[in-house]
Amino acid sequence: MVNVCEILGTEYPIIQGAMARIAECNLAAAVSNGGGLGIIAAGGQSAEWLREEIKKTREMTDKPFGVNIMLLADNVEELIQVVCEEKVPVVTTGAGNPGKYIARMKEHGIKVIPVVANVALAMRVARAGADAVVAEGTEAGGHIGETTTMALVPQMADAVDIPVIAAGGIADGRGVAAAYMLGARGVQVGTRFLVANECIVAQGYKDAIIKAKDSSTVATGRSTGHPVRIIKNKLAKKILTLESQNAPEEEINQLCTGTLAAAVRDGDADNGNIMSGQIAGLVKKEQSAAEIIEEMFKEAEKVYEDRNSICRAGRTV
Amino acid sequence: MVNVCEILGTEYPIIQGAMARIAECNLAAAVSNGGGLGIIAAGGQSAEWLREEIKKTREMTDKPFGVNIMLLADNVEELIQVVCEEKVPVVTTGAGNPGKYIARMKEHGIKVIPVVANVALAMRVARAGADAVVAEGTEAGGHIGETTTMALVPQMADAVDIPVIAAGGIADGRGVAAAYMLGARGVQVGTRFLVANECIVAQGYKDAIIKAKDSSTVATGRSTGHPVRIIKNKLAKKILTLESQNAPEEEINQLCTGTLAAAVRDGDADNGNIMSGQIAGLVKKEQSAAEIIEEMFKEAEKVYEDRNSICRAGRTV
Repeated sequence: MVNVCEILGTEYPIIQGAMARIAECNLAAAVSNGGGLGIIAAGGQSAEWLREEIKKTREMTDKPFGVNIMLLADNVEELIQVVCEEKVPVVTTGAGNPGKYIARMKEHGIKVIPVVANVALAMRVARAGADAVVAEGTEAGGHIGETTTMALVPQMADAVDIPVIAAGGIADGRGVAAAYMLGARGVQVGTRFLVANECIVAQGYKDAIIKAKDSSTVATGRSTGHPVRIIKNKLAKKILTLESQNAPEEEINQLCTGTLAAAVRDGDADNGNIMSGQIAGLVKKEQSAAEIIEEMFKEAEKVYEDRNSICRAGRTV
Repeated sequence: MVNVCEILGTEYPIIQGAMARIAECNLAAAVSNGGGLGIIAAGGQSAEWLREEIKKTREMTDKPFGVNIMLLADNVEELIQVVCEEKVPVVTTGAGNPGKYIARMKEHGIKVIPVVANVALAMRVARAGADAVVAEGTEAGGHIGETTTMALVPQMADAVDIPVIAAGGIADGRGVAAAYMLGARGVQVGTRFLVANECIVAQGYKDAIIKAKDSSTVATGRSTGHPVRIIKNKLAKKILTLESQNAPEEEINQLCTGTLAAAVRDGDADNGNIMSGQIAGLVKKEQSAAEIIEEMFKEAEKVYEDRNSICRAGRTV
């Protein structure tokens, strides 16, 4: 099987999660400079914005980076055109099957890595020529599926012959080591990079991640079939109340309008839409992206080498 | 930290999950004879039934076994009385904090291991004297919490100084090895034991587990605050429809009446309540409980030893 670091062109087999309105040139370049694959999230953005961010990222790093494209975006054709013209090294995709774009992107030398939440879609994208696939568990932040990382990764690894990269619930070396045991060949990390020094979210957003515990997130939007994991704050409770009352979707959408900006730009911990994974409880401090990456992989190696952590449990496992 | 095998008195650090109306003397004895800790599930059962099952289990094995007590049961006092009188080696508990019973059980030589779904409760039961704690992720079958195994285990391991046993999403050696990387010192397995030869569920139930894929389960009951993971069959869809219509809880309860028996006794794959974890997709064949245990731990050792599975991923992790 092809090595994930070779596919990504990186030192470490780690991709930064795509976070709409958060993952732009600053975070992407910092992650790439730190030895991972930084990602510019094109979701909700224009083709012009994306071209500019790619340009700025290239000014900030000479390492490979990627772009994430939400396939449900109205301007998906334009965004695909930009990544092809710019010959972006890697494209990750969300919200569906990028099959019809894969050949075109590959002609431009782009590695294509769809983010998927179930085995059936993983098999479809593998057949369509994807270079690897991100198996994203329901513990991830933002838009999610229903199957957990622990359940999804081994089932997906059995089903496809391209590398599986685990996402969801990974914020330290224990998560990295566990992902490898499950059959993953790399990891995608979002939540921990939210508090990277180079991440542009407001301090209030970072503080909410650092204060979070194991049960601080909730999946909103399950009633509409589009679950989104966010911090359980005032806004989240209002959304859940409307959902429990079967309020019209427009009313929920109206409530949510502007709340991502309130979180990202204003750091409004009460009424902002603070997307976060369940693993936020492990995220305790702000660091540079490079420190985060190095620390995670050093810890993973230690966890892995520590036979005692296994042997002390009784039988050698 | 105390060794989980020492606490359980077993060869392998594995507990069989408590499955109401399924986990009785036959499965419990088979798991214990296979080197794990078999469990009699007392949920929904009378004190007399429990005493009889304990007696039968003792006739079938001379190895340690356990009893699971649902703390919300009306007859919880009577059940506690039985396990104390019978000096059952281990008691696992569900649905709350067994704090007020712990001292009494320990006086009778019983090891107490609560099954919990969040860190706050784990800290409470640890303070109350629990010997270990089962961290159960939302991918487990039956009654569940919201946090996944991948997210829950490391956060719980950081918070308590008693051994954490991982549950949810574990059905093979990859899951066992991953659980250890996350900080667990043992595992609890339910779904895979459903298809043990010695498990008394009807063939239709076993077939539904073996046919299941990664997305074959669904959490019903989220709207009422008591989520239960079951196979997504006709019954499940009916329940979800009623929930989406905000139907009265009594109507949902009425629909569910008798459906566990229909699954367990009659093997009704369409209208039975077939509780199952998300990991059912990995469960492919019926075997003896002893074979299941040996295979899982042998595979875990192989996965762990296989440096190649790590090194081939690029950097040594």
